[in-house]
Amino acid sequence: MDRATTDQWVLPILDVEDERPLYRQIADAIVARVRAGDLATGARLPPTRELARALGTHRNTVVKAFEELAKGGWTSSTVGRGTFIADEPPGMPAPTARAASGLPWSTLVARATESEPLVRARRLARTPALGDVVNLTRMEPSSDLIPERELHRCVDHVFRTLGADALGYAPRQGLERLRVLVAEDLRRVGLTVDPADVLITTGSQQAIDLIGRALVNAGDTFLTEGQTYSGALNALATTGARVVGVPCDDEGPELAALDALARPRAKGLYVIPSSRNPTGTTMSAARREALVAWSRATSVPLVEDDYGADLNLDDTPSPPPLRALDPDVFYLGTFSKKLAPALRVGFVVCPAAMTPTLSSVKHAMDLGTSALLQHALAEFLARGYLRAHLARTLPEYARRRDALVAGLSDALPADVTWEHPRRGVVLWLNLPQDLDAEEVFEEARRAGVLVSPSTLYTASGPARAGLRLVFCAEPPDRLREGARRLGLAIDAVARRRRAARGSARPSLTVDIV
Amino acid sequence: MDRATTDQWVLPILDVEDERPLYRQIADAIVARVRAGDLATGARLPPTRELARALGTHRNTVVKAFEELAKGGWTSSTVGRGTFIADEPPGMPAPTARAASGLPWSTLVARATESEPLVRARRLARTPALGDVVNLTRMEPSSDLIPERELHRCVDHVFRTLGADALGYAPRQGLERLRVLVAEDLRRVGLTVDPADVLITTGSQQAIDLIGRALVNAGDTFLTEGQTYSGALNALATTGARVVGVPCDDEGPELAALDALARPRAKGLYVIPSSRNPTGTTMSAARREALVAWSRATSVPLVEDDYGADLNLDDTPSPPPLRALDPDVFYLGTFSKKLAPALRVGFVVCPAAMTPTLSSVKHAMDLGTSALLQHALAEFLARGYLRAHLARTLPEYARRRDALVAGLSDALPADVTWEHPRRGVVLWLNLPQDLDAEEVFEEARRAGVLVSPSTLYTASGPARAGLRLVFCAEPPDRLREGARRLGLAIDAVARRRRAARGSARPSLTVDIV
Repeated sequence: MDRATTDQWVLPILDVEDERPLYRQIADAIVARVRAGDLATGARLPPTRELARALGTHRNTVVKAFEELAKGGWTSSTVGRGTFIADEPPGMPAPTARAASGLPWSTLVARATESEPLVRARRLARTPALGDVVNLTRMEPSSDLIPERELHRCVDHVFRTLGADALGYAPRQGLERLRVLVAEDLRRVGLTVDPADVLITTGSQQAIDLIGRALVNAGDTFLTEGQTYSGALNALATTGARVVGVPCDDEGPELAALDALARPRAKGLYVIPSSRNPTGTTMSAARREALVAWSRATSVPLVEDDYGADLNLDDTPSPPPLRALDPDVFYLGTFSKKLAPALRVGFVVCPAAMTPTLSSVKHAMDLGTSALLQHALAEFLARGYLRAHLARTLPEYARRRDALVAGLSDALPADVTWEHPRRGVVLWLNLPQDLDAEEVFEEARRAGVLVSPSTLYTASGPARAGLRLVFCAEPPDRLREGARRLGLAIDAVARRRRAARGSARPSLTVDIV
Repeated sequence: MDRATTDQWVLPILDVEDERPLYRQIADAIVARVRAGDLATGARLPPTRELARALGTHRNTVVKAFEELAKGGWTSSTVGRGTFIADEPPGMPAPTARAASGLPWSTLVARATESEPLVRARRLARTPALGDVVNLTRMEPSSDLIPERELHRCVDHVFRTLGADALGYAPRQGLERLRVLVAEDLRRVGLTVDPADVLITTGSQQAIDLIGRALVNAGDTFLTEGQTYSGALNALATTGARVVGVPCDDEGPELAALDALARPRAKGLYVIPSSRNPTGTTMSAARREALVAWSRATSVPLVEDDYGADLNLDDTPSPPPLRALDPDVFYLGTFSKKLAPALRVGFVVCPAAMTPTLSSVKHAMDLGTSALLQHALAEFLARGYLRAHLARTLPEYARRRDALVAGLSDALPADVTWEHPRRGVVLWLNLPQDLDAEEVFEEARRAGVLVSPSTLYTASGPARAGLRLVFCAEPPDRLREGARRLGLAIDAVARRRRAARGSARPSLTVDIV
């Protein structure tokens, strides 16, 4: 049996957010491939040194993974010859029995599971180097900015005062107390909403999925900005929608393009007007007005994701939310970014006519979001903890943004520019024309900094190459260090490019008359 | 403007699981109708007495609801004339503005949201009488059987030991510690599974939805038992599947029928082999073997919902799970029924080849189930609390079943029979041919007992009329009282039927030559 080289290998995808140690992830990935039949018994694994280099990790990690595999009976080794998949891996049915019983899954899966965004997300899932990595991909507060004590106090209060009464099913639309408090909280962003139209979801991610499912028949068009939140692309693609990106300028979606794309009638336009993801920019007030007028004229609903509603870093107010201009806008919010992801509580303010439909689909999806967590969040809001928390964390987010910007100013070549973010937690780096975002991403990973390449955010069509850098999950000095490493990586890729151009053989010119 | 009589009225649906008081639910429902344009300004509301009777609630409740409406400016009253929708209800845009801005939602919603199970569920949502109601519809442990102290202790432990580290996003497949503990726990039901194939979901409800989404292209057939869990019908219908019920005998799905229905190729068969819902019966070992053989022969995957895995009331072991017979079976479990619904933690044991696909769809749906709740449940399992809890609650469930059975034996006429449940928490009542399940359901509601009519559980085609009675949510004396009230209701309906037959005018026979 041929030796599997790292070139032929589909490399295991390592995920820093995975709580398993890296060596376990590697071992598990190999076991999964054996079980799936991708690695046959007797196949030779690549040398540890080679695999470590390809994965951007230490050789010791791979050695440990191989030890795990050997211990589990999955491999056998011969000194000097290498490591091989064992002849009878544990727990594997005999090949004939398996062949007889195995279902033809590849012909059974839904088309939506093989849609471009999902496949791409699997390919580009965050792949860290080991140990000292500056992570600029994690879109969640670093642990020192999560109000654990206050949350603990609120959960405790719920157990002590409500006990088992907080542990049953929640009403399908969400706890009324929480819906009222969310509606009150929204006054701060200039929204007056009826709690009867607030629907609690499992994070705003579920709200995107929910709206997609309530509107999309398979094959329907759903519009997004040309570059947008990857999670929205994944969710919408999973509903069976044909996701089409609208070309954007600095202010937002281009209206001429929108008019052309509304026919054949689209089922919705998903936008992030404030602290846009991935670019970190803000849609102008004029463009917001124009979008609402367009929606009314074309009957294409707007879905407004305002995940960063509270995250104004420079105390400059955002333009009004789309929902303030039109009660038929779906408005999404979440407490994952400003509080704690583990709450898994977000919400959608529905167009009144759609509340019953969304509630019944939500109920069919999961019988409602955890009552315990809803009670705890309501208590948190009622005590005024959120404002206190934001008063503490917003200046820190601003400091982190400034540290990242300072680091980038020092480390990047002059032809790399970025958008200065006034709200939210992401900064967008524009790469020069001749640099490939995924190549920079790979080089940066090897240099010890994780960034997200533009390919993850592209809905359809061409998009400007760039990188998204998240600045909420690392402290200022680490952000500066990350910028430094990124500078080295960009330099390295640019040098390689120049060298490649330099060494290219002069092409023969043949005149064709 | 004409007076709205209760006949013309679509009655508000009252939900005992809703935490809003009933008068609020009534008031909110009326407001919703005004906002949706179903009740125009100037429309007269039905008299409180009439509405109360139709809703099966006290008149005072309706009076209070009307007072709320008046206070909020939604209605105006004239003594002796009645109550009317105010000319300018608060917060309503002027009619022309609304007409101009309103989107044509009825043409925008996805077809799946109007599928039969969802529409039916909305129509039959649990409608209680006020106050003293015996609720035999709530499929969750009564609050005295929820281990609130142990859960509190575990959550507390997680906050104290992990703090902010437990408050981020969880790995998309679920916490590894929890997956390992779930796999260990499954040994008790005779299952040996690899934690690498366990995927944590937001209750088993989400697992049904997830599998549907991973397999179904809109219009694909998905099979279920002829009568099955209403939540599964809702979830599968929402994925766009054409849900087809398989005729069943006492042992399970009829094999001859299955063979015919597998073509055109179905994407799955959803079954609840142990403690079937709604009938409370158990599928025979022979039928399980046959189902697995059928699945292999036809390449139709099996989805096994084992929500009642631990709930053996008489200490008689269940036949082996389908998953023990075939590693290509999706096996679902939940902690909602045996522990606490608010955990919202369930799981699916995936066919190995499908784990990555399901993980990526799950991630697209909600970025993972709450890490905090997963940590807490893992701690609960690791401490052995689950076994202790079951040792305490199972005898109580058995007592409750016995109390219900004793009550039914006393109260029901001889022609009403039931299936004796040996596991799970539901009992199925077979109604005589001439009694309509929904009519009995309505009459029982008026008599102060809530039951679930067979219409909720019918996948497709004709089904035997009956009622599902849940015995876990009420204490023994209330179950006996519920049985008594149900007996009165069935008697009343049967009497009406006889009277109707007796008073029917003899039909004129006209010979047409």
